[in-house]
Amino acid sequence: MESQPRVTVWNEYRHERLDAKLGALYPEGIHGAIAAGLRAHGLTQVRTATLDEPEHGLSAEVLAETDVLTWWGHMAHGEVSDAVVARIYERVLDGMGLIVLHSGHDSKVFKRLMGTSCQLHWREAKDHERIWVVAPGHPIAAGLESHLEIGPEEMYGEHFDIPAPETLVFISWFSGGEVFRSGCCYTRGNGKIFYFRPGHESYPTYFNADVRRVIANAVRWAAPTGGPTPTPRPNYTPSAPLEPMAGA
Amino acid sequence: MESQPRVTVWNEYRHERLDAKLGALYPEGIHGAIAAGLRAHGLTQVRTATLDEPEHGLSAEVLAETDVLTWWGHMAHGEVSDAVVARIYERVLDGMGLIVLHSGHDSKVFKRLMGTSCQLHWREAKDHERIWVVAPGHPIAAGLESHLEIGPEEMYGEHFDIPAPETLVFISWFSGGEVFRSGCCYTRGNGKIFYFRPGHESYPTYFNADVRRVIANAVRWAAPTGGPTPTPRPNYTPSAPLEPMAGA
Amino acid sequence: MESQPRVTVWNEYRHERLDAKLGALYPEGIHGAIAAGLRAHGLTQVRTATLDEPEHGLSAEVLAETDVLTWWGHMAHGEVSDAVVARIYERVLDGMGLIVLHSGHDSKVFKRLMGTSCQLHWREAKDHERIWVVAPGHPIAAGLESHLEIGPEEMYGEHFDIPAPETLVFISWFSGGEVFRSGCCYTRGNGKIFYFRPGHESYPTYFNADVRRVIANAVRWAAPTGGPTPTPRPNYTPSAPLEPMAGA
Amino acid sequence: MESQPRVTVWNEYRHERLDAKLGALYPEGIHGAIAAGLRAHGLTQVRTATLDEPEHGLSAEVLAETDVLTWWGHMAHGEVSDAVVARIYERVLDGMGLIVLHSGHDSKVFKRLMGTSCQLHWREAKDHERIWVVAPGHPIAAGLESHLEIGPEEMYGEHFDIPAPETLVFISWFSGGEVFRSGCCYTRGNGKIFYFRPGHESYPTYFNADVRRVIANAVRWAAPTGGPTPTPRPNYTPSAPLEPMAGA
Repeated sequence: MESQPRVTVWNEYRHERLDAKLGALYPEGIHGAIAAGLRAHGLTQVRTATLDEPEHGLSAEVLAETDVLTWWGHMAHGEVSDAVVARIYERVLDGMGLIVLHSGHDSKVFKRLMGTSCQLHWREAKDHERIWVVAPGHPIAAGLESHLEIGPEEMYGEHFDIPAPETLVFISWFSGGEVFRSGCCYTRGNGKIFYFRPGHESYPTYFNADVRRVIANAVRWAAPTGGPTPTPRPNYTPSAPLEPMAGA
Repeated sequence: MESQPRVTVWNEYRHERLDAKLGALYPEGIHGAIAAGLRAHGLTQVRTATLDEPEHGLSAEVLAETDVLTWWGHMAHGEVSDAVVARIYERVLDGMGLIVLHSGHDSKVFKRLMGTSCQLHWREAKDHERIWVVAPGHPIAAGLESHLEIGPEEMYGEHFDIPAPETLVFISWFSGGEVFRSGCCYTRGNGKIFYFRPGHESYPTYFNADVRRVIANAVRWAAPTGGPTPTPRPNYTPSAPLEPMAGA
Repeated sequence: MESQPRVTVWNEYRHERLDAKLGALYPEGIHGAIAAGLRAHGLTQVRTATLDEPEHGLSAEVLAETDVLTWWGHMAHGEVSDAVVARIYERVLDGMGLIVLHSGHDSKVFKRLMGTSCQLHWREAKDHERIWVVAPGHPIAAGLESHLEIGPEEMYGEHFDIPAPETLVFISWFSGGEVFRSGCCYTRGNGKIFYFRPGHESYPTYFNADVRRVIANAVRWAAPTGGPTPTPRPNYTPSAPLEPMAGA
Repeated sequence: MESQPRVTVWNEYRHERLDAKLGALYPEGIHGAIAAGLRAHGLTQVRTATLDEPEHGLSAEVLAETDVLTWWGHMAHGEVSDAVVARIYERVLDGMGLIVLHSGHDSKVFKRLMGTSCQLHWREAKDHERIWVVAPGHPIAAGLESHLEIGPEEMYGEHFDIPAPETLVFISWFSGGEVFRSGCCYTRGNGKIFYFRPGHESYPTYFNADVRRVIANAVRWAAPTGGPTPTPRPNYTPSAPLEPMAGA
């Protein structure tokens, strides 16, 4: 593992350019706010990429140099090319970490890695969100208190159609009466995946100190660990036996 | 739940017709042997379907009347139409059980539901396979002893590129020196999925009494339980709050 | 598995006798209300046992004839004899199901089976509780809607110091701002365990139709399945090899 | 987290002193071999403690200065005082890591933390052991190949009566025909626990390069992460609501 994982912060970057109010909230884009938060937590190798760059800023070269990719998308999931999605998917299986944020639940790559619809219930009504830590010993909860006060946010409610997380780190409470599994860890191939709920484009969530801490923790947790190369895909070659075979 | 789940046993049904030796081993096809095993275990609503039937025998009507689908395929995964795969996938998320057998690990629908490559190491060399029960209290292990003696079989070895099973019921030992996670439970949406390793086309595995018992147990375990309807896919309608909203 | 599991409903049965108001709420005791709910859901082999009976009503004979034990205790956890706790513990490892209700989180037997403190945060303040289904395909959620409206209840809040559940079925929302993992499945040895949160003695929770349904579902889910006998405890006898040993 | 976790390597240290042949195998004791392996992997804060020291070398002071404890015991589990066991148990819930080695499966503290018998099948017959990596992306598998060749070892076979691991990292293959879940991760309270199978006293297992790497990896993985303080035990104080309460 790199002591300093190489992070690429990906953002759709449409809302901020299309809506002046949202642009004022995130003058450097949502990606800029997330990258600044990572740098403030001591991560030094942070770059950004956005949808409207060539190959969405995620060429094979960029991904090959990326240890952890963070993903924010919302209104243009369908515009992400299948080729780039396949490239990210393969990199995750090979060990790249992936942090999926908020409306990224509906992205092509997250749904492909989860194997479910990843749909949920939702409401834009300035609910108050409070996020409870249910796995306090997990590295992603390092430095937190018992809960995070998020403030006004879009509501996401259960049932959230995901596979049961390997580790559930956070659960959200919403003032309108719902709960949500807000911090969900997965492994796919050699890659670690973390889904983190908060971050609707109309709230300054990515300036929240605790949210920034969680994303930085998640990046460090998801960085590749240098284990054995996963099974080749597809695997055309039979294995030689490791023991004498009676019939051989 | 139906006290008698409606089972559809699906088989590629090519090996048995193309190779006389395999045809002699499974004169009613692999599907015929599996269906007979289920009926011997008291399941009364069992039908079969095969690749070369129209819509592979899996029309919307057939799937709507199927509580649990069992899947055996090997040489023709690529010939299964994407439309039928999508139909099965949606039915699983809605609650249909799916039992994936042996080389079905590389089927389109299993890979889509898992979100990984599902590749593995393998060898056709008459290894001896012995399957150990590691979850003796699980319904799929009902009526078994500590292990199943399978006899000569194709070897499947780790690393098996699957998500960590929600419950691991079986682990295989192979005489050539490998191990394999052989009985793996998953939930996707409202649907239960069980992967069961043994059953290469050149061995009479589906006549093995313990193998038949496991598949029958798995069918009963995977039958739908009648819980709440999962989140609509895609979910376009916002939720009304359940509590008075200060700002509303 | 018995098609009709033999259920023993255990209750501390002190609050109802010491406090007239609580006695009026549960004139047949909390155990009486739970047993009535099980019978209303078609379970025919239901008996009850209470703390102040000899051996707390849980003699070796009674436990030997019990497939599933439900447990409600609160003010007198310390009075449950260690011998009876050990007897229950051994029966669970051998396959008896155990349904732990509400304040039973602090019982000796639950803490012994969990291996953690099982402590939590709490408040008696007529919070409103709403329980969300997060595993809609699980047998314990059969017949439910997306959530259960419980009404006024004691609050239990995170962090709940339990091992991560093998399956998390329910999450509670409380009007005071907390969430709680309310429906938690475990396996210990051959035994299945379900913890279900609601049921403070001062509320008529065990007359709630959905709560009754959940407990009945849980009893059926936790009934023994007849798998292989677990490893003898303690295990003094070495195993004979199953393969020829080179050095033997 | 300390960049250098403070490790205490605990050993029963009886076999090596009672049996000259075993003493010759481990001239510095099993603890000496384990500690040397950790130091060779760059861990600088490593001390040892043994059964026959006062308080087994595990005073409150020592444990307060221990981030990760490794445990090897076999013939004298019963001589470990209940007071020291309780002290270790509480420290684990508060966040200390615990690495349990080989016959430590039957130690008081492991059984208390697991909540099961932790019994297994076994044979001393110079089986060949090979350990397969089934979670190649896990930090404990860092730097390994697809499998570890252990050589002659005591056999441990399934069923191993443990709770299903939160993450299963390794599975052992034995030449006598058995398999075993050999690398098992758990969380209890804020503490991380790793059980690692190999290491019978009559084999030079703790000099094996891969075994040493695994233990060093496990120590780094299990070091505390500095999350929120777990729920007080026992928790006598009710929580104040975080939202306005209608009835308050």
